[in-house]
Formats: sequence, C-alpha cells, structure tokens
Amino acid sequence: PTDGLGRSVPPYPLPPPSRQNKVLPEDLKTPDDHVERDPRLIRLTGVHPFNVEPPLTDLFDEGFLTTKDLHYVRNHGAVPRVEDSSVLDWDFTVEGMVAHPITLTLRDLIRTYDQVTYPVTLVCAGNRRKEQNVVRKTKGFSWGAAGLSTALWTGVALPDLLARAAPLRGARYVCFEGADRLPNGCYGTSVRLGWATDPARGIMLAHRMNGEPLPPDHGKPLRVIIPGQIGGRSVKWLKRIIVTAKPSDSWYHIYDNRVLPTVISPEESADRPDVWKDERYAIYDLNTNSAICYPAHDERVPLGIARGDAATYKLRGYAYAGGGKRVTRLEVTLDQGRTWMLATMSYPEDLYRLAPEGETLFGGRLDVSWRETCFCWCFWSLDVPLSRLRDARDVMIRAMDESMMVQPRDMYWSVLGMMNNPWYRVVIHKESDTLRFEHPTQPALMPGGWMERVKKEGGNLTNGFWGEKVGGQDAAPADEAP
Amino acid sequence: PTDGLGRSVPPYPLPPPSRQNKVLPEDLKTPDDHVERDPRLIRLTGVHPFNVEPPLTDLFDEGFLTTKDLHYVRNHGAVPRVEDSSVLDWDFTVEGMVAHPITLTLRDLIRTYDQVTYPVTLVCAGNRRKEQNVVRKTKGFSWGAAGLSTALWTGVALPDLLARAAPLRGARYVCFEGADRLPNGCYGTSVRLGWATDPARGIMLAHRMNGEPLPPDHGKPLRVIIPGQIGGRSVKWLKRIIVTAKPSDSWYHIYDNRVLPTVISPEESADRPDVWKDERYAIYDLNTNSAICYPAHDERVPLGIARGDAATYKLRGYAYAGGGKRVTRLEVTLDQGRTWMLATMSYPEDLYRLAPEGETLFGGRLDVSWRETCFCWCFWSLDVPLSRLRDARDVMIRAMDESMMVQPRDMYWSVLGMMNNPWYRVVIHKESDTLRFEHPTQPALMPGGWMERVKKEGGNLTNGFWGEKVGGQDAAPADEAP
Repeated sequence: PTDGLGRSVPPYPLPPPSRQNKVLPEDLKTPDDHVERDPRLIRLTGVHPFNVEPPLTDLFDEGFLTTKDLHYVRNHGAVPRVEDSSVLDWDFTVEGMVAHPITLTLRDLIRTYDQVTYPVTLVCAGNRRKEQNVVRKTKGFSWGAAGLSTALWTGVALPDLLARAAPLRGARYVCFEGADRLPNGCYGTSVRLGWATDPARGIMLAHRMNGEPLPPDHGKPLRVIIPGQIGGRSVKWLKRIIVTAKPSDSWYHIYDNRVLPTVISPEESADRPDVWKDERYAIYDLNTNSAICYPAHDERVPLGIARGDAATYKLRGYAYAGGGKRVTRLEVTLDQGRTWMLATMSYPEDLYRLAPEGETLFGGRLDVSWRETCFCWCFWSLDVPLSRLRDARDVMIRAMDESMMVQPRDMYWSVLGMMNNPWYRVVIHKESDTLRFEHPTQPALMPGGWMERVKKEGGNLTNGFWGEKVGGQDAAPADEAP
Repeated sequence: PTDGLGRSVPPYPLPPPSRQNKVLPEDLKTPDDHVERDPRLIRLTGVHPFNVEPPLTDLFDEGFLTTKDLHYVRNHGAVPRVEDSSVLDWDFTVEGMVAHPITLTLRDLIRTYDQVTYPVTLVCAGNRRKEQNVVRKTKGFSWGAAGLSTALWTGVALPDLLARAAPLRGARYVCFEGADRLPNGCYGTSVRLGWATDPARGIMLAHRMNGEPLPPDHGKPLRVIIPGQIGGRSVKWLKRIIVTAKPSDSWYHIYDNRVLPTVISPEESADRPDVWKDERYAIYDLNTNSAICYPAHDERVPLGIARGDAATYKLRGYAYAGGGKRVTRLEVTLDQGRTWMLATMSYPEDLYRLAPEGETLFGGRLDVSWRETCFCWCFWSLDVPLSRLRDARDVMIRAMDESMMVQPRDMYWSVLGMMNNPWYRVVIHKESDTLRFEHPTQPALMPGGWMERVKKEGGNLTNGFWGEKVGGQDAAPADEAP
C-alpha cells in the first residue's frame, strides 16, 4: 500500500507522535524529581508514588497504540535514576538453577542477541477496581477503566536467553527482580518456566518502547514484557532473572496481585498467610474484560425531532483477553441481558501479521505471522438507533473469549479488588431533548458515576440488578420458601 | 508407600476393575452388532448411532478414573470393524505441508517411537446441553451432566511425530481424519499447529486405554487424544494427519462444535454459512464448568430431630477447566449468590506428578512432573449443616479457573447448545422430615428436574432467577424507566 504521495505505507499501525514532556512542578518535591511526565495523566495515589491512568476518552482516541505520554504507570516507589550515558552499561544476571549463569550488559544484549519488535497491551490487575471500592472498600486504590495501554516493544525473546543459560531439571519458575528499593525489599515476582521458554507466549526483555529508549516510568533502561498477563509481572528496571524450583518469595509476589476467595474479608486476610501463599490465587493471565468508551461519561447526545428515527449512535469501546487468547465476540444489551446484539470487532494486531517476510521495525524483526496468540486489545462498535437508546435505561456489554468463557454479570469482589470484569454498564438519562450517559465510576477520588449515585440513594449494589428497585422491591428473591 | 501386606503401592490412582461386556440385544439390529457394551450407559440418540453417558452418580462413584464400561461415547455413525488380528497392521499417514510425509502402521508407531502414559479427562462439548434444550430447543441432543470421563491413555506424543515430518513454513493447522464413513464424508477436524507441537499441550496418538487396547467405541485401534479440548477434536479410528495452512474443511468441522452468537436462531443459522465458517466461533479449549453429584437427583435426606443441629451433609461434585488450566476454587451458595462458601478441592491428577523418575505404566513413560498444565477433572466437597440446607431453597456452585474467569450465573444459549456452563443449581424440597433434592434435568428424554417443572408451571427460565417469582412478580425489572 502507498500513501497519497506514492510513498509505501506499512500495513500495520505505527505509534502516534509523542510529546516532549517536562518535569512537573508537583514532582519536584519527590524522589521522582528527574522524571518527565504528561500532565494529562490522572494520579491515583496522590503525588507519589506515581500511579496514573489517562482519561479513558483520550486513551481511546489515540487509537491502537498508546504514546509513552498517556501510557498508564504503576510504580511502587521512587523511579531508579539512570543517566543516558550509563544506559548501555546497565548489567543484569541470569542465575539460579541454570547450567550456565550469565551476567551481561544492555550493550551485550543488543549486540549478541536477535532483536524483535511487536505490540503488546499491558493491563494493570487493578483495572476497573474503583467499581469494587464503591461496593466495599478493598485494599487497593481506585483505577478506572483506563488502566491499560498498548505499545510497540523492542528487545530480546526471553526463550533465547534462557536457552543459553540452560535451566536444570527440577527448575519450574523464573523470578524477576527490579532495581527499585521498596519498604519490603526490591520488587520481585515470578512466572512459570514453561511460559518463559515458550515462543508463542512472547515474553521479552525490552529496551525500546514505540521506537524510543524506555522512559524512566517504564523501566529505563530494561524491563520484562509479558504479553497476556497482568502488568504486575512485567518487572521494570530489571536486574536479576533467577531460575528456581519455587515461585518468588518476594513480599510483592505474595501479598499483591492475587484474587483471594470472595468470602475472605480484609480483616480476616490479615491473619491468613496460608491463603496469601496459595499459588492458586496468584494472578498471571489476564481475564476477559471490556469497556464502553463512547458514549463517554457525561456525554450528551441531542435527540432533536429533526434527526428522525433513522438517526443512529455508534457505540464503541475496547476488549481484551489473557494468555494469548482472542476475544471472539462482544455483545451489547439494551434490556439488561434479556436480548443481545452482536458488535462489529476490529483486531488491529492482526495487521502486523501481514508484515512482509524479513521486515524490521525499530531495529527488531517484526515477525508475528507464525503465531496465533493475541497479545493486544481489540475494538468493538455497534450502530444503534437513537430511538432505541432513548427507550433503554442502560447499555451493557460482555465479551467472550476463544475458550468460550463470557464476562460475568455480577462482580467477584475480593480483598485486593483485582480483575474486576462484570458487564460494563452505562446508564442512560433522558433530559428533555438530550440523552446523558453515566459510566459506573470515575477514577481516583473523582466523583461521578451511577454506582456512587445509587449507593447514596440507598440502593443495594449487590442485589443482582445494579441497585435498582424491581417491581417496587429489591430484586433479590423474597426470603420465604418457594 | 506400601499396602497392608507390605507390597509397594503407586502414589497415583490406577483404573478400577473393568467388566467383560457382551454385544447387547438392541445393537444386534444395527451396524454396531460387533461392539460389546455396558448396559448401564444411557442412550441419548435412540439405539443407533451410539451416544451415551453413564448415570452421574455411577460415574462419580467410580472415582478419578473411569472404566471403559462407563466412559461416555460420542459416535456419528457405525463403528469401524477392526479384527484383533489386523490391529498392528492399521496404517495411517502424516501428510500435507511437511518436508517428510510419513506412512506408518500401528506396529511401526509402537516400535519406533517413545511411548507415554497419562490421564486425560475427555468432555463432550454438549455436556449439560439438556438444560439448553429445556430453555429453547437446540440442534443437538440432550446430554446431562455426565458427558465426561477420565482414563489413562498410552501412545505417542504428537510433537514427536510432527518433528519427524517437519512442517513447512506457512503451515498453521493439523487436520485429523477418521475411518468412519458418514453422510457428509469421513469425520474430520483440525487444531492449531502450535498446539500440536507443544509438549505442554500433551496431544497424543493413543492405542491403549486404561492399559487395554482401545475398545471399538473409543477408536480401536488408534485415536487422537487432545487434553483440555472438547472431545470432538480427539478423532477416533485415525487414518490421516494432514498439515495445512487452513482449518479443516470437513463438514463436521464447520457445522459442529461451534458456539454461534446467542442472537442467531436455529432458523437463521440455516442460511448463514459465513457465520458457521467463522473460526472465532469454533470450540477448541473447554470452558470452565462444574456439577453437583451429591446430593443426587431425587436423593432424600432425613432431617430427624434426633440428628440434632450438628448433623452435616457433605456436598460433592466435579469441576474442570480447559487449555491445561487448573480450577483454582469452587464456591457454594445457599442464598442464590448473595454469599458464598469455599469448597475443599482435590486434584488426583497431581498424584501422577509424584511418580518416581523413570516410572513406566502400561508400556508408556509416566513423566508429568515437568509440566504444570492440568488435563483432568478435579473434585470438590463441602460439609454443610443440615439445618442450613433445610433453610435454603437451593444449592448453587460456581468454579473459577487460573485465568480468574468464573462460571456465569446465566445460560449462554446458542444454536448447537454447546459449552453450557452456568452455575449448577440443585433445588431443595422440604417434605415433612425429609429433604428431597432436584437437579436441573435428567439426560436424554428422561423426565425430571426443576427446569421442566418450572417451565410447565409457567415460569420464565430466562428471568434471571431460574423462573422463580420474585416478590410476587417476575424478576426482570419492570419496563418503565427508572
């Protein structure tokens, strides 16, 4: 394909232009006084540490790829300071249960190993946690629905590096440790060795993001990128790779990124190290999730008789699944689940599979045609007559993945409030000749959303009908026997 | 470990004793007049072809491994007749997009390749379809909740065979064809090449079941076994393995084993080959599912004042997930989802991981300690005070898998009625001093179950509350705007 001037255009998306940011005034009083940031990002944990998501609409409008400027950030503490001049001297190890332990610099990694480039959507395990916090306070801060971002990452396939290190019999996990110094030690976590050595899983040591060296907030100069898993496993500022028989014993591996059984309260969890250490509750693969981006929260759409019954609104949003799985359908209901419509899907990630053989991008081979796994978000849209939106009380969506698992209608509440993925619901308000749309929540401490409103009005958000009264009563069945 | 007589006992389960069956009178008038079968199996499609499941309680009582006698069977037509004397001469091919096409006999396969043995649970995509048929008739017959079975399979790892055949660049699928002759050609289907070459996925060409040569109903003398995927991909009476760029074009691959979008009616589906051919709707990995086995349907439990409030009942059942994933928890509710209790899990499959290095079983290496993937069902149990069961109207369960996807509360109805996995619900009836339990359905045309009862009473099974009236009304929210 060529552009209007006859220049050849790749068949796949390239990153939108990024900005030259500055150190923001609020960061000057923190240990991050050396980190340039985009002021549009919404801070979720006060000024420091830096945990941010972009406004959902801005994220969606950037398209398939997210600039470094709007990419969400999850930092546990101060960002390690690495001068540009010392980037190539950054060293790290591959050690533990391996026949050939390795110590190498970033310079070695770039010179000695094949470089690859491909897009990966990172998602925070806390994406959409604000909804859980409205139902019942969790031990986590309030992400909205924009705790995810997609970039082109360039680096070295971890299986290549592990093949040289040669894991020994009995090895089953790969631990990663970052350079950040935190109250409970350095940030560390682990994944299964079987995943780390599987090319189709695509785990990468990345040193470029959208063609540029990693920004400090994204792991400068070297990080792990684990497609299809929660962002919390993609360790930044990477210093050690340790092959082990057991999962990581880092405090951050055990006491974060878990979905404990819903019956366990925050109070009880404090006395249950046995439950925290149960690997069955550790989160690795993302679960299937989706959100409505248009209409946006508080968006107003004029009905206007002049527009007629033929006028339509294009509902739009994103969806993703975990473990390399594809989202195979997204369905929309305007009658609270009684009937569903099938949305149109688009999978921009598939365009990279069309790259010609031998293609390189940002110094890495772009060769993903051989694998069927999906590492990125996808998009959905559906044109709906305005008259139908006018007659509905809400819009809800659910995605299904290739393993035929569908998003649940109801929330699975848990102590850390992670992996929240019930049907995303936008309420429709009729205001004279206008429709006004209301998302479930707004991120951080920002007010707004139907969940807080319903709760304030005395509605029971866990009654199975989003806190609405049904036939003048609460929706849960009466307590007398049938 | 040793038994009471000092003999050493393996740390893992061995198959229960199997029976010597006979050709049953009803099969004598069919093309299957040479096939010996167990009369306990419940026929789901009349006398012929043979599609059967065992009584759920019998299946559960056999334990982790199922005998050939009770193993469910899904046949599309007549069972190919293969004399014992010609079994070793059975030949098959590996062909298509490979550098080295192979034709070999079962004798070659056994002599030339490493043999392996491990347990795999096969599950029919139609398991629990009867529930869908009660809601709305599908294009499929009525499986109960016993369309699954577990056996020890012995054979050759498919990746070994494919490595010798050497797939060419551009190859992406592996098609399998059986020897059965059917109205629309031979039975054929395909899976992704990436799965077929991945040892952790465990795809095997099997010639022994629980240590015995394959019975005719299970593919005598050679079949594919695909762990973690629906039984429909595990082709029996295997004749051809074809490496291709595209999925199988067999009628049975396209028009069976799919979950079409719920909006598509049986009538509409007849005119939509485009939808049938959309690979996104093809089922490969199993979805996560579970059932209650005790209390059984129509089981009666005396309350008896003498038993006191301390008396408990042990709820028990099974659960499984797909794609090698583990079921990480099972939860039980006695109040229709308002609160949940955590069941105790057992994973007998893990006992095989304890086999000593070098162990062999039935002529195959038993070496599964190196992989983390789960290929088998697991069990759950929960002791509940009888007084709590007495006060509840029903028991419902839901499983969650390691990707943090939970079974949905509501049914995803589709044309073929496959992959039905909403919360399994058993209704509790109080009858003087006895509790009587009622499962959702009984298999085939057998009457019984709360779904048919509620439907006959005029209840709306899709009202979000299992057809119960709520506060004297239907549970779905009233139609007026909020």
